[in-house]
Amino acid sequence: MPGRAVGPGPPAVWRPLAARADNAVMAHRLDDVSAPARLAGPDEGISQEELALAARNHGIPLEALRYDVTPPGLHYVLTHYDIPYADEGSWELVIGGRVRRPLRLGIDALRKYPAVTSRVTLECAGNGRALLTPRPVSQPWLVEAVGTAEWTGVPLRVLLAEAGIEPGAVDVVFTGADHGVERGIEQDYRRALPLDVALGDAPEVLVAYAMNGGPLPPQHGHPVRLVVPGWYGMAHVKWLRDITVADAPFTGFQQAVAYRLRQDADDEGEPVTRIAPRALLVPPGFPDFMSRTRVVRPGPVALEGRAWSGRAPVTGVEVSTDGGGSWRPAELGPGDGHPWAWRSWRLAWTATPGQHVLGARATDAEGHTQPLDQPWNRGGFANNLVQRVPVLCLDPGDDG
Amino acid sequence: MPGRAVGPGPPAVWRPLAARADNAVMAHRLDDVSAPARLAGPDEGISQEELALAARNHGIPLEALRYDVTPPGLHYVLTHYDIPYADEGSWELVIGGRVRRPLRLGIDALRKYPAVTSRVTLECAGNGRALLTPRPVSQPWLVEAVGTAEWTGVPLRVLLAEAGIEPGAVDVVFTGADHGVERGIEQDYRRALPLDVALGDAPEVLVAYAMNGGPLPPQHGHPVRLVVPGWYGMAHVKWLRDITVADAPFTGFQQAVAYRLRQDADDEGEPVTRIAPRALLVPPGFPDFMSRTRVVRPGPVALEGRAWSGRAPVTGVEVSTDGGGSWRPAELGPGDGHPWAWRSWRLAWTATPGQHVLGARATDAEGHTQPLDQPWNRGGFANNLVQRVPVLCLDPGDDG
Repeated sequence: MPGRAVGPGPPAVWRPLAARADNAVMAHRLDDVSAPARLAGPDEGISQEELALAARNHGIPLEALRYDVTPPGLHYVLTHYDIPYADEGSWELVIGGRVRRPLRLGIDALRKYPAVTSRVTLECAGNGRALLTPRPVSQPWLVEAVGTAEWTGVPLRVLLAEAGIEPGAVDVVFTGADHGVERGIEQDYRRALPLDVALGDAPEVLVAYAMNGGPLPPQHGHPVRLVVPGWYGMAHVKWLRDITVADAPFTGFQQAVAYRLRQDADDEGEPVTRIAPRALLVPPGFPDFMSRTRVVRPGPVALEGRAWSGRAPVTGVEVSTDGGGSWRPAELGPGDGHPWAWRSWRLAWTATPGQHVLGARATDAEGHTQPLDQPWNRGGFANNLVQRVPVLCLDPGDDG
Repeated sequence: MPGRAVGPGPPAVWRPLAARADNAVMAHRLDDVSAPARLAGPDEGISQEELALAARNHGIPLEALRYDVTPPGLHYVLTHYDIPYADEGSWELVIGGRVRRPLRLGIDALRKYPAVTSRVTLECAGNGRALLTPRPVSQPWLVEAVGTAEWTGVPLRVLLAEAGIEPGAVDVVFTGADHGVERGIEQDYRRALPLDVALGDAPEVLVAYAMNGGPLPPQHGHPVRLVVPGWYGMAHVKWLRDITVADAPFTGFQQAVAYRLRQDADDEGEPVTRIAPRALLVPPGFPDFMSRTRVVRPGPVALEGRAWSGRAPVTGVEVSTDGGGSWRPAELGPGDGHPWAWRSWRLAWTATPGQHVLGARATDAEGHTQPLDQPWNRGGFANNLVQRVPVLCLDPGDDG
């Protein structure tokens, strides 16, 4: 792996570069720092490169699933390259391509349109990747790459109607300001939506400039981002600076190479689109610092959590407290008019001394449900295998 | 490691618990989920347990070193157990022990005292741990466990003066609301400061209820936390609910067992206290997604970053662009009246095609400087080894 030569490996001692054998051949090309996609070997631990991604991108601490709307800083974050240093005052969003009236809009202009606010649960397409066997080597999410926010902005269809879409348009391409290299290809982050999705009102795609009532934080796309309710995070282009209507299907890296469900490297695969159903628990009891195993005392334990699907509303959550041996239906909280946000659920459990493995399984109105076998693919996308929550119930009176 | 039996390992398939061999013996004790401290074996990758910590705690994305004050959600976060679900309205801080007038203060009462605001750079004592060889197994920080905020609250010495400290007091013990298990010991997070530090005004310890002008976010100690400028993060007890003045040295887990600089398990070690000097770069150019290696084009590159020390003001930053072969002094930004916050620095660099390794080295007014050999200790604390930033400079005209 040529990238190793300048990879972030830990030196025990500092030495002049010239003395480092791995630099004997000086490399000048992106291929030297940008490794091809790969799978971890058997028993291969998480690498320094995966750790560097885990240290800067972060998930939601699962206890924060208690909140209907995720508090600032607890919502998951995934940035492909760098968070751009954006100046709201001078920011411009350009809308062009196959349109009759190209638009150039600053933040003030966007704020003049009738504002729409939607509560949306966002999940990274790579959530669950690090639990797959074999493990695709990329951002190593376990189950925590999710969050819910109130997004405020202008419906994309309103802006596209004003620009006037010309005949023959098929895709709408969104370009963000974050710039970097991926598998040897230098690029701005860029994704497309089919025209019918871009113009749709179920979901209604937003060009958003506010999160939970305030300006977008830098890591969530300041000052402008796309929000595509029901779709995995890769579609919600952050730091949005260009919208181009195209008369041919978009074949950029993030559409045709990344974010596809492949079984092997030669498989063209299916594109990653809407969020598969998933339920997670608010971890019961208290944790061990290192293993994160949960500890409870014997007696009643109120189990609660969240469940969501980007395909259809969640209609049921089953809970197992015996590692999948049996399942009981949980009580669902109110849908409360937020079809694109997670739904709360609860179930009473009486804990008995010993080890238990808890799990919750969501099903949506279209009958999609979570698998009990890992849904493996080469990119490690959309792994909604039912969560396992190991719990130790202490003996009566054991105060640790 | 018995914890493995209920550790967060990835199952490829869900099975009833009874069918799982590793549960054949049912365990009922905290020892079964709470492993002793250990070092990673040679070439041992980051474990699932370390990854679970990295996924919920997070560092600052290094490009955010550009900001004088770290924007919400980008400041590093380290929580030992769970983030408590705290209600500001009913929260009470109790001050007792060896005092003449025990106090019980709600948020409104704290807000009635004259408020003090300090800009403070906070760093986790474990920052740099995952770069050590051998690697202590715990929260696997690289170099990004840092952030700077404006903290507002009441000076601790004001509250202690009102309570009236009795003769014989030696330590002041602070208890947070987060509860969990660590190495088999169930505990609330609890730390102490020597009386002279607690009463000091250089630094002035704060009982803080605001961060950057707003209420504390949940992950930063909502509604009340301790801020001890110049000290590593373990001293800044979050979710602060009890302050007890003690007439004997505090020997709790986080004081006498954890957070000590030990060379081996039997070594009593020295306590971790103030932040050692460190400088970090704003990563130049743009990154490769997976390796995080930086890419620049030939010509002038403005290098910039931050430097800090909890022992004395930073007086110099040297920068190397050849992997430590030579060092040049950087230009320091103004100290601007924030003695406990990081200081900006900059240096002009002319990049030439090929691979380079950049680093910056901070020195403070007491002459403390960063080592070029790893300062190893068993807990992986205070590793301020000079950062290595590998950079690839492309050939002229190479557009990747």
